[in-house]
Amino acid sequence: MTGSLVIAGLGPGSAELITPEVSEALAEATDIVGYKPYVERIPPRDGLVRHSTDNRQEIERASHALEMAAAGRKVVVVSSGDPGIFAMAAAVFEALEAGDPASQTLDIRVLPGISAMLAASARVGAPLGHDFCCINLSDNLKPWPLIEKRLRLAAEADFAMAFYNPRSKARPEGFARTLDILRDACDQDRVIVFARAVSTADESVRVTTLADATPDMADMRTLVIVGSSLTRVIERHGAPLVYTPRSAP
Amino acid sequence: MTGSLVIAGLGPGSAELITPEVSEALAEATDIVGYKPYVERIPPRDGLVRHSTDNRQEIERASHALEMAAAGRKVVVVSSGDPGIFAMAAAVFEALEAGDPASQTLDIRVLPGISAMLAASARVGAPLGHDFCCINLSDNLKPWPLIEKRLRLAAEADFAMAFYNPRSKARPEGFARTLDILRDACDQDRVIVFARAVSTADESVRVTTLADATPDMADMRTLVIVGSSLTRVIERHGAPLVYTPRSAP
Repeated sequence: MTGSLVIAGLGPGSAELITPEVSEALAEATDIVGYKPYVERIPPRDGLVRHSTDNRQEIERASHALEMAAAGRKVVVVSSGDPGIFAMAAAVFEALEAGDPASQTLDIRVLPGISAMLAASARVGAPLGHDFCCINLSDNLKPWPLIEKRLRLAAEADFAMAFYNPRSKARPEGFARTLDILRDACDQDRVIVFARAVSTADESVRVTTLADATPDMADMRTLVIVGSSLTRVIERHGAPLVYTPRSAP
Repeated sequence: MTGSLVIAGLGPGSAELITPEVSEALAEATDIVGYKPYVERIPPRDGLVRHSTDNRQEIERASHALEMAAAGRKVVVVSSGDPGIFAMAAAVFEALEAGDPASQTLDIRVLPGISAMLAASARVGAPLGHDFCCINLSDNLKPWPLIEKRLRLAAEADFAMAFYNPRSKARPEGFARTLDILRDACDQDRVIVFARAVSTADESVRVTTLADATPDMADMRTLVIVGSSLTRVIERHGAPLVYTPRSAP
């Protein structure tokens, strides 16, 4: 029996945003591995073992998945959104490099998913319609000064910016500092979007400006998008549309 | 009869990467609007009119779609990849702002898709697993010095970089200049990935270094990814894996 490892993106929450490719991989799996809330999105069925782990146990989870695949299981590691964007794919490759050389011949595939960034952007319009950058604001795995340096250079480049993991209970200060840096580097009327849990029952979206943004508008389920200097808001009946034009002067 | 406008992402090419949400919108449409090769991905059926236009006619295409929706049609504007990443969504909103105020009350939704960037990244591993930026290398709609400035700042920020539209017959020099700038700003052994037409029959992927990269490795169907200073290559049987670790020192 030949095992395999698939690292699959479940999209931001709605089943309507899971690709057919990922649905097929899930239907063929013998084992699903991932962070508990994501694993619980896969319904139980005969012949499927669901392995849930806590948050921040990525390397243990990845090693376990590699071991099971090497033993002949059909393993799917699940991430929310896209597995390559601040998610499990990099963790699996770290574990692969550090682990048993035998597992380096394993059949491994990454299946993309709708990232939170794309889902949030679509929900408000097209704020990432011109050049942009994407930064993980958590300083669990990198020093805060590197985040600050990237924020300042991104503002100087006039990128729109998408932020993952803006704020958690364990580190409430980082996002307040981020807002301070951006207010220092950008105009006060710069557009900022807080898109929380897009495509789930908990979805909420707020469009405001840097001047009016407060740290409590973000939590770990929020994807934050800051416009470039050219990003525009179309006020309309219902929710405003936010977009960045394709042209720059 | 109430019209609607949906701006939908068809993903990079394979039907396996089209979300159920987009498939449903296509099934309900009366009119499909888009660049010819993308419109031709939608099979003809009774009750569906397919409107194909040439490349670089985005605003005319967007205005036509808005007019039809205002007249009561169920219109779907299709883009390859994700409609919000260098694609039709921003063009529709430009046309919306410039056009008939009546169309500003239209029912408009953007449905995300698997962008070329996510598909290319998944195919080689997880090169965008840490902070990154995304730049359109075409200078049709922005001045070249702005592209050069962004490339230099992105290198200084040590972002991984994803490049859309790296090279066309009409502007073969830009990508050669891009490689020169990156060789000037980064180490010569920096990883670079050329991912062409991922998930289609024409797919080809090449992993090399800045030192060995040549301009002819890219064309308009190629998504180019340049790693950060930390991006690693795992040589393995078959194709190498490329990933950027989650941690930075």
